[in-house]
Amino acid sequence: MNLFTSVNDVSDVAELVNEALAIKANPYADQSLGKNKTLGLIFLNPSLRTRLSTQKAALNLGMNVMVMNMDKEGWALETRDGVVMNGTTVEHIREAAAVIGEYCDVLGIRSFPGLKDREEDYSEDIFNKFIKYSGIPVVSLESATRHPLQSFADLITIQEHKKVTRPKVVLSWAPHIKPLPQAVPNSFAEWMCRAQAEGLLDFVITHPEGYELAEEFTSGARITYDQDEALKNADFVYVKNWSSYQDYGKILTSGDGWMLDLERLKVTNEAKVMHCLPVRRDLELSSEILDSKESLVIQEAGNRLWAAQTVLKNLLSST
Amino acid sequence: MNLFTSVNDVSDVAELVNEALAIKANPYADQSLGKNKTLGLIFLNPSLRTRLSTQKAALNLGMNVMVMNMDKEGWALETRDGVVMNGTTVEHIREAAAVIGEYCDVLGIRSFPGLKDREEDYSEDIFNKFIKYSGIPVVSLESATRHPLQSFADLITIQEHKKVTRPKVVLSWAPHIKPLPQAVPNSFAEWMCRAQAEGLLDFVITHPEGYELAEEFTSGARITYDQDEALKNADFVYVKNWSSYQDYGKILTSGDGWMLDLERLKVTNEAKVMHCLPVRRDLELSSEILDSKESLVIQEAGNRLWAAQTVLKNLLSST
Amino acid sequence: MNLFTSVNDVSDVAELVNEALAIKANPYADQSLGKNKTLGLIFLNPSLRTRLSTQKAALNLGMNVMVMNMDKEGWALETRDGVVMNGTTVEHIREAAAVIGEYCDVLGIRSFPGLKDREEDYSEDIFNKFIKYSGIPVVSLESATRHPLQSFADLITIQEHKKVTRPKVVLSWAPHIKPLPQAVPNSFAEWMCRAQAEGLLDFVITHPEGYELAEEFTSGARITYDQDEALKNADFVYVKNWSSYQDYGKILTSGDGWMLDLERLKVTNEAKVMHCLPVRRDLELSSEILDSKESLVIQEAGNRLWAAQTVLKNLLSST
Repeated sequence: MNLFTSVNDVSDVAELVNEALAIKANPYADQSLGKNKTLGLIFLNPSLRTRLSTQKAALNLGMNVMVMNMDKEGWALETRDGVVMNGTTVEHIREAAAVIGEYCDVLGIRSFPGLKDREEDYSEDIFNKFIKYSGIPVVSLESATRHPLQSFADLITIQEHKKVTRPKVVLSWAPHIKPLPQAVPNSFAEWMCRAQAEGLLDFVITHPEGYELAEEFTSGARITYDQDEALKNADFVYVKNWSSYQDYGKILTSGDGWMLDLERLKVTNEAKVMHCLPVRRDLELSSEILDSKESLVIQEAGNRLWAAQTVLKNLLSST
Repeated sequence: MNLFTSVNDVSDVAELVNEALAIKANPYADQSLGKNKTLGLIFLNPSLRTRLSTQKAALNLGMNVMVMNMDKEGWALETRDGVVMNGTTVEHIREAAAVIGEYCDVLGIRSFPGLKDREEDYSEDIFNKFIKYSGIPVVSLESATRHPLQSFADLITIQEHKKVTRPKVVLSWAPHIKPLPQAVPNSFAEWMCRAQAEGLLDFVITHPEGYELAEEFTSGARITYDQDEALKNADFVYVKNWSSYQDYGKILTSGDGWMLDLERLKVTNEAKVMHCLPVRRDLELSSEILDSKESLVIQEAGNRLWAAQTVLKNLLSST
Repeated sequence: MNLFTSVNDVSDVAELVNEALAIKANPYADQSLGKNKTLGLIFLNPSLRTRLSTQKAALNLGMNVMVMNMDKEGWALETRDGVVMNGTTVEHIREAAAVIGEYCDVLGIRSFPGLKDREEDYSEDIFNKFIKYSGIPVVSLESATRHPLQSFADLITIQEHKKVTRPKVVLSWAPHIKPLPQAVPNSFAEWMCRAQAEGLLDFVITHPEGYELAEEFTSGARITYDQDEALKNADFVYVKNWSSYQDYGKILTSGDGWMLDLERLKVTNEAKVMHCLPVRRDLELSSEILDSKESLVIQEAGNRLWAAQTVLKNLLSST
């Protein structure tokens, strides 16, 4: 593996999950692998879980870590070619990425979408240019359209907590007051579709009309607007807001009735509830669920560490 | 020790000072203790001395350090329970603290008071919630009402420089143009009162009328409005501004005449002068003192390292 | 070496370059030298290349690194003596520097000029006070008037890529829309003048009238306003904008015709083109050169690492 930007960079997700669980059981076994290797972490947007878990994963592997908050510590990057740089951008991504590639062995990047121009966001222009010009292995710390380390951690969590061989996993849209990216649900959907194809689980998506995700991420998933029907016999409910893909970046409904509480969960198979965090309590998900034993949100966040460590180990092995 | 938020977490301050002096004499003896352990440092307010000294202390112990400037790199945390999070707060402290607890073995937190609502500040709500929800040992890097690492470093400094068995230590209020927290004088007072009870020194507090600290911190101290009388035969003078506790957060006087200079020190027993820094020269304390051999301010700052290392060593031993 | 702020701190630049090339060939040979040593990096201005390369250099030497972004994580420092600090400055540089000296073994500082008051900028007041009051070895990460790590990296790059024994090196002024410091050209000039004196190369400076650098940096250089004449048979062309030293901090001309492209390079001896980065494409330097094999800008940035590691190794040897 010399790139980790989507599930398409993984040949066998079940095997990758098993590797993660082995690392979790024995976290410090590979410290010679990272000796004198440097992980660069570039944040074009803020991060808490992602930075800490990835930093810790690298330290567990014996790596050095250098963090760059480009918005606070750096300057505006030019990403277009063929423009005279006499405006506000100070450095071209061609130089910035190549220079970082000189100092680092592996690069992690976080970059959010603007949610204004769908074609631009879904082209993953900034991301692809960092990959192209840095010349080193790149791991996505969330891009405009995907958050694969989160989805990998989610799958690890499902595998750890499943009580049946082939659990029913439901991605359930939730209300929010701000338009959020589709990156987490896109990624979760494509990882669950792959896991379904590998026979690990059954996957259902439920959301209000107009919140259909792009088809490239949902191939094989059952999709329904009827949340109650979707929840029936669910083993895991993954709660997440996203803005519309079709009417791009828009909030189409306040989502009254879509927030889960313990009452709504009664139709499930004692389902565990998941969320990638940060979560707005009693807007996206009820406090009573978050404070109950049904919630797996902290365990998911904990597994971000092992997801990152597994990916970094694979990337290091390729350098 | 699995918590360090006040002198009440210490059973014997003289012993702790001796432990610090032993560490100072041999700083790298415990590097196996911190191997593969991670210290998380959360700053809700800026820091220079505290971050550097605590980071260095952790490195001396072989630990990894991850710094989070929540104001710059993170987002607004919700601390109240039972509110629908449809406003400006992005994540609840319940989740934020628990997640950090997944990645770190010991947590350091800095959080300042608002100086508007005394009850709120003195409840140490944010601090106590981080302790409760992170589930790991916590060290205070200064809270709304206390700064115990500073006071511990101050006591180390006094023990190193004392010329008599039981020196007279005076906490002397100083002028300032901004209302400052009571955290440093509160903590200094309760550490000195404890040291007095253990027979290590005699403790006097002097300030203008209206600047009385809360009684819980000053039990056993002699308190006087007469600065000259307080200074008589003093061996150490600890200079610090604070705002009023009674008329909460207010500046009651410009403090004309309260700033020390070498002339004023003549009544002392060749007293050494201390300040926690940062100090505003010629407002809080005269340049002539700061630039003289009477000043211990740099030595105090240096001892912050050994105070932090001693506390971290004790917290690590409990993990 | 216990200070690195200009070429004047170096006794033999050819020897220092050879030392750098030996370190580049064997980067991890000196890790015991930096064990339990801490490098403090103070940024009064933002940095990307400098922070990453210096941090990596320190890690290669086994050092710990603590970064302080004073503008974001700290507070305003007072640098004047004899003022009552009742304004916006929170701490005096006398205390700030001395405290940092308590926690660090080597100190790196970046500070830019204001470009308003030439005498003030060229006095290097902030820089000199950090040196004086920190009491530890200091390395310049770019000061108001010099950027010696950059120039050292440039000389390494020239030595690596030269095809003749004594190449012709040309410093060629370039257009820009903002007034930039003279630090990079000053430093480049004094390093090249020294290298010329040591017989390593021939050095020519070309710029529009009014852009003369201060004479203390250009002793021995040939200076001409005729760019085409300067470029003739050049082996290396170092492109850089700077604002006027004489009419201090001013932009005197838009610089039409001064930007290089491949056509203009035809009179050279297949010259390699250099720039310290960040570079504004098609304003300072044409994209066609930057994307061609003639460009050495990425290699220069890469060599920043070895320049920093060589200097840190020398500074460590003196602690």
